[in-house]
Amino acid sequence: MREATADTTSPGSLIAADRVEGTAVYNRQGDHLGAIKTVMIDKPSGKVAYAVMSFGGFLGIGEKYHPLPWSMLTYHRGQRGYVVDLDKAQLEGAPSYDAATPPDYDDPAWGRKVHDYYRVPPYWM
Amino acid sequence: MREATADTTSPGSLIAADRVEGTAVYNRQGDHLGAIKTVMIDKPSGKVAYAVMSFGGFLGIGEKYHPLPWSMLTYHRGQRGYVVDLDKAQLEGAPSYDAATPPDYDDPAWGRKVHDYYRVPPYWM
Repeated sequence: MREATADTTSPGSLIAADRVEGTAVYNRQGDHLGAIKTVMIDKPSGKVAYAVMSFGGFLGIGEKYHPLPWSMLTYHRGQRGYVVDLDKAQLEGAPSYDAATPPDYDDPAWGRKVHDYYRVPPYWM
Repeated sequence: MREATADTTSPGSLIAADRVEGTAVYNRQGDHLGAIKTVMIDKPSGKVAYAVMSFGGFLGIGEKYHPLPWSMLTYHRGQRGYVVDLDKAQLEGAPSYDAATPPDYDDPAWGRKVHDYYRVPPYWM
């Protein structure tokens, strides 16, 4: 999460995962892109790896999931949601999956692909 | 999370926060201590700070919450739950709160108190 006051040597600004879940995601143009379904935690390091954004579908059917590197998300109070620097065309080409075919989140090659797509450093570096 | 294979230079073993939520917590003696309500995320650093364990109460009334430093939890497949090295007497004296009086998770003094109680290094160090 990018914050103007980012400081990793003290406790910062804590938020409960169950409040992140369901939060809307917008791009900088104000388009509604989806909502956070859950966050993926890297157990050994205790780091949040991805926010998984869902969109489309009805009652979970036809829904698509986009793993977004956590560092891409900034919370905007005014919009009551997360803002990511991502236009709709970028999102259409982005790594995504549906509920029936989840990726192997533990696969380093897959993780690199997602981070490369968004041009952000991997959470494990 | 303590793992025998802990390695923070590569993606490790990812888990969705919404699957952590609801997972049972036991101590090493096999006593059921509670269940994970949510995890608290430190936004600037992207680190998981606490697993919040709930126990007692009915439909949320009378429920108590214990913030457990994330590093204390180990998942045990056999028990299908997290195991913490904590006896019941230790838990009774531990920092806790009810839904009506949540602590200020952003207060460094409060964070230090919790970590000191369990004798684990703070997540921000």
